[in-house]
Amino acid sequence: MKDYTTLSKEELLCELQKTNKEYDGIKALGLSLNMARGKPGKEQLEYCMPLLNTPLTSDSFGTNSDYRNYGILCGIPEARKLFSELLECDEDCVFVGGNSSLDLMFGTVMRAYVSGICGSMPWSRLPCVRFLCPAPGYDRHFAICSHFGIQMIPIKLNEDGPDMDAVQKYVENDPFVKGIWCVPKYSNPDGITYSDEVVSRFADLKPAAEDFRIFWDNAYIVHDLYDKSDKLLNIFDELKKRGKEDMAIEFVSTSKISFPGAGVAAMAMSKRNLEDAKKTLTVQTIGYDKLNQLRHVNYFGTAENIKRHMKGLAEILRPKFEAVYKSLDELTKLGIAHYHKPRGGYFVSLYLHPGCAKRTYELAKAVGVTLTAAGATYPGSYDPDDSNLRIAPTYPSKEELEKSLSVLSVCARIAALEVLIKSAE
Amino acid sequence: MKDYTTLSKEELLCELQKTNKEYDGIKALGLSLNMARGKPGKEQLEYCMPLLNTPLTSDSFGTNSDYRNYGILCGIPEARKLFSELLECDEDCVFVGGNSSLDLMFGTVMRAYVSGICGSMPWSRLPCVRFLCPAPGYDRHFAICSHFGIQMIPIKLNEDGPDMDAVQKYVENDPFVKGIWCVPKYSNPDGITYSDEVVSRFADLKPAAEDFRIFWDNAYIVHDLYDKSDKLLNIFDELKKRGKEDMAIEFVSTSKISFPGAGVAAMAMSKRNLEDAKKTLTVQTIGYDKLNQLRHVNYFGTAENIKRHMKGLAEILRPKFEAVYKSLDELTKLGIAHYHKPRGGYFVSLYLHPGCAKRTYELAKAVGVTLTAAGATYPGSYDPDDSNLRIAPTYPSKEELEKSLSVLSVCARIAALEVLIKSAE
Repeated sequence: MKDYTTLSKEELLCELQKTNKEYDGIKALGLSLNMARGKPGKEQLEYCMPLLNTPLTSDSFGTNSDYRNYGILCGIPEARKLFSELLECDEDCVFVGGNSSLDLMFGTVMRAYVSGICGSMPWSRLPCVRFLCPAPGYDRHFAICSHFGIQMIPIKLNEDGPDMDAVQKYVENDPFVKGIWCVPKYSNPDGITYSDEVVSRFADLKPAAEDFRIFWDNAYIVHDLYDKSDKLLNIFDELKKRGKEDMAIEFVSTSKISFPGAGVAAMAMSKRNLEDAKKTLTVQTIGYDKLNQLRHVNYFGTAENIKRHMKGLAEILRPKFEAVYKSLDELTKLGIAHYHKPRGGYFVSLYLHPGCAKRTYELAKAVGVTLTAAGATYPGSYDPDDSNLRIAPTYPSKEELEKSLSVLSVCARIAALEVLIKSAE
Repeated sequence: MKDYTTLSKEELLCELQKTNKEYDGIKALGLSLNMARGKPGKEQLEYCMPLLNTPLTSDSFGTNSDYRNYGILCGIPEARKLFSELLECDEDCVFVGGNSSLDLMFGTVMRAYVSGICGSMPWSRLPCVRFLCPAPGYDRHFAICSHFGIQMIPIKLNEDGPDMDAVQKYVENDPFVKGIWCVPKYSNPDGITYSDEVVSRFADLKPAAEDFRIFWDNAYIVHDLYDKSDKLLNIFDELKKRGKEDMAIEFVSTSKISFPGAGVAAMAMSKRNLEDAKKTLTVQTIGYDKLNQLRHVNYFGTAENIKRHMKGLAEILRPKFEAVYKSLDELTKLGIAHYHKPRGGYFVSLYLHPGCAKRTYELAKAVGVTLTAAGATYPGSYDPDDSNLRIAPTYPSKEELEKSLSVLSVCARIAALEVLIKSAE
């Protein structure tokens, strides 16, 4: 096949006719496939079953207190230790919560909204609050902003992380910029890992707002697909060097390590931030599920074992991601797409010819293949180029995935051909 | 022993001297006992162990979706059904959450604060918000109010429930009265169950505020100590008769049925309230721990089985409560205390001679017996009579409990004698 962008109008029309026929063939199949959400597949869930059913016995419920009973707001010491190993930070800085890191992030914004942060004015009392949103990004981060009426400022996400000149300009000049959402390793959806320079520049920030916080959602911290993995600089180490530990709050969970609904989430922050957060958390709950924390501690034991466990999951996931790469490489050769080939995480982010994302999404939907809605990865669901589609390869079987990808390919080609023909007129 | 209130000053002084000697004897023992919080005891936790370790197998994770994966915000259908049986309401009205009903209550107030209820003005935007607080009551309810800056209006709790004339006056005339905290069965701390008339009067209320809600914390719904248990009228039935289903939100949990940290909490409300709550909940989390819900469903199966299970727990608890009754009856005979003898729940609420609660608490603390802080059961920790002490008999062993009770008795007698001597001067 030839690069579409070099074809004449006649050749484009001919190519469209052929591709439309392919599309009609697909329509007749009556497919029902889903590549929309970053859910683990069945094989991954089966792989984690031993964790679920390892019995908890009476002699393991803690020495100073009984983990079956009320109390221990910040999580059982063994779980705080395990997460501190994983996050490479002090145990005292770790708060282990329930099953959802999203809930911990929502809670962090909610606390700031109701009570402020470390004595600052509650965000609900301010004329406006703004968050920087590297885009494309995680739609649920943006949904939290919308919920609290927080204005979102999109920031370009480059190959090495967010555009730090823009970040610095906003953070250092606008006292209403109170936060930034970051998925610093294998970002959702691009799979980009922030470079050391970007992380250092984050630590260098001198915010106009004393209650500005970096929301460091390290969702894919150990979610490598290859032995040679991306390395992320430890932001807390960088902050510590500069005496600015209060500036970041890190979030993590085992949702995609053990079970998405029944994992354990944690957050790490400075002691000052944690003391502040506890003022609310102690009103909100007597404590999270310590027995599920214990289940995870008993099964994993160490961060090293978690990493070993992740290698097993990578075996399941790598062939799926490579099927995506293969399919997208073909689109790339046609000159109508580009993408970053991630070495981990849960997504691949496809940039189509401008103006083609919505059309491709609709075409795929009409023949039974559900993708993440076009635009969903941008604040306010507005993709200025109408170009980005997020591909979530983990949930379908490899066979279903390959079928979906071939449908995506046909739909993307049709959309691109239509646009190219129009601009050739 | 004679009724203290009939003694002469001489006799009182003599009695005080004797009791002080008893107290000195206790001091020498170096006790360290705790009757402060409503925590289940070790024997109860052991009784529930089979629930914890019943294996979950691959064929039980749902038919339409896999409960190990993301999703199902409102809880797995089987859990909604189980709680609907327990609460005697429609399954559609039940939301099954995480491990904490306190968190569900906090969340309900938080949603109203941030977003209002069913389109009403967010409470954060109002000049003030008031809650009615039947007192004595549950300190954690009051802590939620304090956290959100909600003014608390104490309401007298009578033997059949809150003073409904006062409730009606406030609710029907003050549009800033937005809620009332109720523990309608075996109330914390008095163990009082609201009469049918009181529940009907709740349903009859015509609130000045359209977003007034009754927070119906049915924490002790099946926590009977005796076969002959208190019966509580179903508030939703009463509301339905009057077309006012939106007015109450009910909360419940298995914290004191299975495990305090690892149980399942639920709330019940009208479909309109639930749809409204879901607008926030879907931003906050992808779903709660469905595998712990499944664990409970698999173990209990039916509400009937939960009630059978509770009879086993009652066997453990009844002797402890009866030890409390025996000890308090002796104080009662001295004319320096009265109390309601509950037929269930987790607490006994002791009314000492006015002005004696703090002194008794301090005396007990000084010899190593921790009670719930005097006043804690009142809004703002202010007991106008300085009379109430909450006794939590479940956590200590029967032996420790009896020791604690004898200490309490000595301290209460000293405090009363001191006051009586002073007023005889």
